[in-house]
Amino acid sequence: MHQINVGEDLRERNREIAAENHEMLRRHGVFSLNIMSAPGAGKTSLLVKSIPLLKDKYRIGVIEGDLQTTRDAERVGALGIEVHQIQTGGVCHLDAAMVHSALHQLDLDLLDILLIENVGNLVCPAEFDLGVDARVMLLSITEGDDKPKKYPLMFTESRLLILNKVDLIEMVDFDIARARREAMDINPRIEIIELSCRSGAGIEEWTGWIEKLYSESGVE
Amino acid sequence: MHQINVGEDLRERNREIAAENHEMLRRHGVFSLNIMSAPGAGKTSLLVKSIPLLKDKYRIGVIEGDLQTTRDAERVGALGIEVHQIQTGGVCHLDAAMVHSALHQLDLDLLDILLIENVGNLVCPAEFDLGVDARVMLLSITEGDDKPKKYPLMFTESRLLILNKVDLIEMVDFDIARARREAMDINPRIEIIELSCRSGAGIEEWTGWIEKLYSESGVE
Repeated sequence: MHQINVGEDLRERNREIAAENHEMLRRHGVFSLNIMSAPGAGKTSLLVKSIPLLKDKYRIGVIEGDLQTTRDAERVGALGIEVHQIQTGGVCHLDAAMVHSALHQLDLDLLDILLIENVGNLVCPAEFDLGVDARVMLLSITEGDDKPKKYPLMFTESRLLILNKVDLIEMVDFDIARARREAMDINPRIEIIELSCRSGAGIEEWTGWIEKLYSESGVE
Repeated sequence: MHQINVGEDLRERNREIAAENHEMLRRHGVFSLNIMSAPGAGKTSLLVKSIPLLKDKYRIGVIEGDLQTTRDAERVGALGIEVHQIQTGGVCHLDAAMVHSALHQLDLDLLDILLIENVGNLVCPAEFDLGVDARVMLLSITEGDDKPKKYPLMFTESRLLILNKVDLIEMVDFDIARARREAMDINPRIEIIELSCRSGAGIEEWTGWIEKLYSESGVE
């Protein structure tokens, strides 16, 4: 089918540029994460809650991917860190080339950690490697515990699954044990953190996870 | 840019097939809706809650779009109505050709209303007309009230916006008035129903909306 072949060519080209991005980030001593989720799962809130715990110790930069608006970049920029906005103009995911252009506009020598917030979409962002050190996904428990099996690629590609909005657990029919089990059926090595951006529960576990990976990555 | 041109060709071809679908559905006297939302906003729950209120009066068929699993089709099929499953194999939206194949496998003369549940995605499904009479979108209030401006095309293309999970309104920072205002800034003609699949509030308003459009559509 024609559509699939076009997709495969695009993905091969994406892989090449992602490798360039990775080399470029490493050369400048930058540790990087690609943060993915469905719309409204809380990616921006996670950044807003956790960057204040990190920014005195590490020099943080953020790339914000959005279809149209600059709202997320404004929310994160209010933290007083370097934020670069990518507006995809309707494209439903970031790709390595978009990030490559952004990397050329950031002063990478002034950064330790780069956090990339992808477009809100549980499907396509998982298909496009950006060249980061690790991918992280958020699943809001309001989305339902059947999501791992329904959207498996995102779970396969992520090193960390954040179950967000756990403050709502009594109000929704979400079985955390089932979601954990199904996520690990798909990706036995996935790590899982339960978190609430609203209550603050789990935020320090998340920043601790970033610090551990940063330290293990050997960037300097 | 090459990627955009490929997209435009695909969309033009999609429009042609969508027009065929529409003609085919009308010829067989079938009124049809394309139901779209982000993952976990409650599309399947909406069908499960509302079809029992409609199925004694109308002959209902459902097309279920999913990346991989048949879970949603099983949930809806348990209602004792005709369900056709489309597994997109990782493609993040239904397109008119997928629906066209499904239409050929349904006995359209035995249906009054066809409900198509799209893949959970707030971006791409809005770009692919399926040839239905109207598009409906769900926004779960747990996703945040900033979504209309961030994902405008879905709001532009939808005739009805369902604000789902309103039973959680006290638990989340969602301003219904703001979401309504921003949705109407984008699409002044959009109709809006507040609903909770969990409590049942608003379900009859939704089935009444379907009945009104069915009656106005002139299918017979």
